Amino acid sequence: MTNSPIEQSIAFAHEHSDRFLEQFNELLRIPSISTDPAYKKDVTRAADWIVTEMQRIGLRNAQAIPTAGHPVVYGEWLEAGNESPTILFYAHYDVQLVDPLELWESPPFEPAIRQGKLYARGVIDNKCGVVVNLKAVESILETVGNLPVNLKFIFEGEEESGSPSMEPVVKAHKDLLNADLLVSSDGGSYDKDLPKVFSSLRGLVTAEVGVTGPVRDLHSGSYGGVVHNPAHMVARIIAAAHDNQGRIQIPGFYDDVRPLSTAQLEDLQKQEAYLLAQARQEVGRDTFWGAPEYTFLERQTAQPTLDVNGLFSGYQGAGSKTIIPSKAGFKASMRLVAAQDPDDIAKKFTAFINSFSSDTLDIQVDITSKCWPVEALIEGPCIEAVQQAFEATWGKRALLYRQGGSIPIMGMMQRELGVPITNFGYGNGGNGHAPNEFCRLEHFYRGIDSAIHFYHTIAAAF
Amino acid sequence: MTNSPIEQSIAFAHEHSDRFLEQFNELLRIPSISTDPAYKKDVTRAADWIVTEMQRIGLRNAQAIPTAGHPVVYGEWLEAGNESPTILFYAHYDVQLVDPLELWESPPFEPAIRQGKLYARGVIDNKCGVVVNLKAVESILETVGNLPVNLKFIFEGEEESGSPSMEPVVKAHKDLLNADLLVSSDGGSYDKDLPKVFSSLRGLVTAEVGVTGPVRDLHSGSYGGVVHNPAHMVARIIAAAHDNQGRIQIPGFYDDVRPLSTAQLEDLQKQEAYLLAQARQEVGRDTFWGAPEYTFLERQTAQPTLDVNGLFSGYQGAGSKTIIPSKAGFKASMRLVAAQDPDDIAKKFTAFINSFSSDTLDIQVDITSKCWPVEALIEGPCIEAVQQAFEATWGKRALLYRQGGSIPIMGMMQRELGVPITNFGYGNGGNGHAPNEFCRLEHFYRGIDSAIHFYHTIAAAF
Repeated sequence: MTNSPIEQSIAFAHEHSDRFLEQFNELLRIPSISTDPAYKKDVTRAADWIVTEMQRIGLRNAQAIPTAGHPVVYGEWLEAGNESPTILFYAHYDVQLVDPLELWESPPFEPAIRQGKLYARGVIDNKCGVVVNLKAVESILETVGNLPVNLKFIFEGEEESGSPSMEPVVKAHKDLLNADLLVSSDGGSYDKDLPKVFSSLRGLVTAEVGVTGPVRDLHSGSYGGVVHNPAHMVARIIAAAHDNQGRIQIPGFYDDVRPLSTAQLEDLQKQEAYLLAQARQEVGRDTFWGAPEYTFLERQTAQPTLDVNGLFSGYQGAGSKTIIPSKAGFKASMRLVAAQDPDDIAKKFTAFINSFSSDTLDIQVDITSKCWPVEALIEGPCIEAVQQAFEATWGKRALLYRQGGSIPIMGMMQRELGVPITNFGYGNGGNGHAPNEFCRLEHFYRGIDSAIHFYHTIAAAF
Repeated sequence: MTNSPIEQSIAFAHEHSDRFLEQFNELLRIPSISTDPAYKKDVTRAADWIVTEMQRIGLRNAQAIPTAGHPVVYGEWLEAGNESPTILFYAHYDVQLVDPLELWESPPFEPAIRQGKLYARGVIDNKCGVVVNLKAVESILETVGNLPVNLKFIFEGEEESGSPSMEPVVKAHKDLLNADLLVSSDGGSYDKDLPKVFSSLRGLVTAEVGVTGPVRDLHSGSYGGVVHNPAHMVARIIAAAHDNQGRIQIPGFYDDVRPLSTAQLEDLQKQEAYLLAQARQEVGRDTFWGAPEYTFLERQTAQPTLDVNGLFSGYQGAGSKTIIPSKAGFKASMRLVAAQDPDDIAKKFTAFINSFSSDTLDIQVDITSKCWPVEALIEGPCIEAVQQAFEATWGKRALLYRQGGSIPIMGMMQRELGVPITNFGYGNGGNGHAPNEFCRLEHFYRGIDSAIHFYHTIAAAF
């Protein structure tokens, strides 16, 4: 009896599981912290390690593309034949900072296994996304000799720093990155038994607003009643941004919001109870908030938001200091949904803030970042390919979910490359930006199996 | 030709000016910082120095009254005769902290003279109030042998710490402190050529409000739209506290505000241009704020206020952190005018804050301090006595002004002792709570002359 190509590849992966883990550990030991310049050489070392590994397993055209910041690693296999589609996989090899270091039970760059979990900074976010793909490719090429699909890998080194170099790299390499589908290998499962796949991402506009009153803090007795208090203006602006049930009052803010389809609404309705229970646990409150004409999940994923992230003015220490502060300000983030345009929302926000201008205070507004919302695939052959691969390895279909958060580069790549997007992640872990980040070992190994399956199912979807 | 008693006393003061300055310096060298427990012995040393000095110059019953904190110094001269009134003078011998120390041009507790100014911590606020009175008494007793008026001195050691011990001391010593008039020797002149006397003080209620939402900071993408943001609630509360022209919207807040008399309004109108020009300079803005039905000075001194002194929530560092904060809060000070009752205002403020209570957030309100507004003397023989003493020594009458700020112990002493209040200060200086605090030397010497005159003019006012 001859085993199928998938069975042969998976058998190889299982035979070499110890070596695969040791090679994963090699990458985990490199402290590729992208935000701290002190680690610049380490980030480059991690990129070089990946290029070498790509070359070793037989990927073509492997290279570290230089950028103004850290390199973007690229590698490809285009020998599956003209009839096979080309899939562009995204992951990132840079990691978050490690502080507070004293809370780590083992050093963040010395991988350690405890109770079936592999602990290291970056292990789940997102070096597993890099290594699992490479190990799946290696297992297929070492057994079958050719891949069922044309693959391109783009592994970023600045995801934890806001991806400043990705847009120039993508714009300069549109042909190189041309593909039929973009798959993010960033992101895992909802819990350890349920894989998840995002079907939408909200966009983002962040802003800072500063209000200046008197040239210095003043005595609140001497000047109370005659000097316009900048903290009052900040409060007035923020209060005016919502009605009392949470509807945003910025003129035109909802103009481009696209209503969900009946199918999408039904899908959300099915998930509502499960995800609401999870949210109650994480938030620590039973009662949620927002406009009652929408369900919890609609408000969380299909409606735009405006949240104050930080607020400051005057004296914040212990006791009282009876001043009229010279300055006040706030930071805000707005989450956008299709088809809101971040430039348009930034303009409307700015106009709203400026509508409070007065001759007794100076108001300054700065837009600090912008990204597009993403409508990823929600149905069709590619989603079926994703689900078949999960069924074959996890024994169940993934939760297809609308993500309230944002992944700025997904919207950028979608727009620049004109490509549909989906998500295929490799496991559940935790503490992604916190001490004691981990990946379950069984998920690392199962991830390789699922990738081998996915390369085959996606090949058949086109 | 025989000189008058006043002339003899002033001649003595002028003859001994060098010694008087050296004795002032002795007290200035003692770092009587009341807020820092490390200086507790120094505060006691300063109290003891004053008691010794009182005894040396012939005051009776001199004592350091122990309290739960720093001592209150008392001394008296009651031998002016039954027909003479008894005047209670208040000043304080404790001083503010000195930081930032590096901004001082000479060490804060090593008095130094530069260009006619005496630099030291506490020199103007308010050790001059203590020493000038003692030197005036010494000059009269050494020449005339008796004072024209019965005097009681109460010198506090905790003014810069919020005067926690004054109320128990005053309540326990009502007979000792019984007087016909209370005179504050704290406070100076408007500028170096114009003495000032307060005719009213605003009361004060301070409060802290805290709002708690989720148990920890949350991702603004994951929870934006469903979790009630405590920063939004804080903004809503603060915004609701005023209308857009600055009228306070707390129900009943203005119920007990007493309108000014026509004479008071006319007096304010005369001062408006001068004080408005001064305010423009200090505030650094041309345009002021507040309800247009009141003049600048009415809003500054005769109307109550509510000001946010500090405001906080979430992330305040550089860059953006897209969170929904777990907590937000603010500190507020309310200035009260006659006949507002601080307990009543505290209750109304608390009820107002609690009216925002919700099942999606927890709101906490704490009243942190309360004091009464004060109506000091505005006319009559005592004010004439004050003005005559200034005319004799400054060559002009003092600016009788409504003070926007508060002096908590004045309202307390007025209520406990049932005594009218006025203000007789000894000079202009600057940087009262800042580095390089100073007192003009000519004002120190002129202060002694003016006190000698005042003891005589006030004796004739009853």
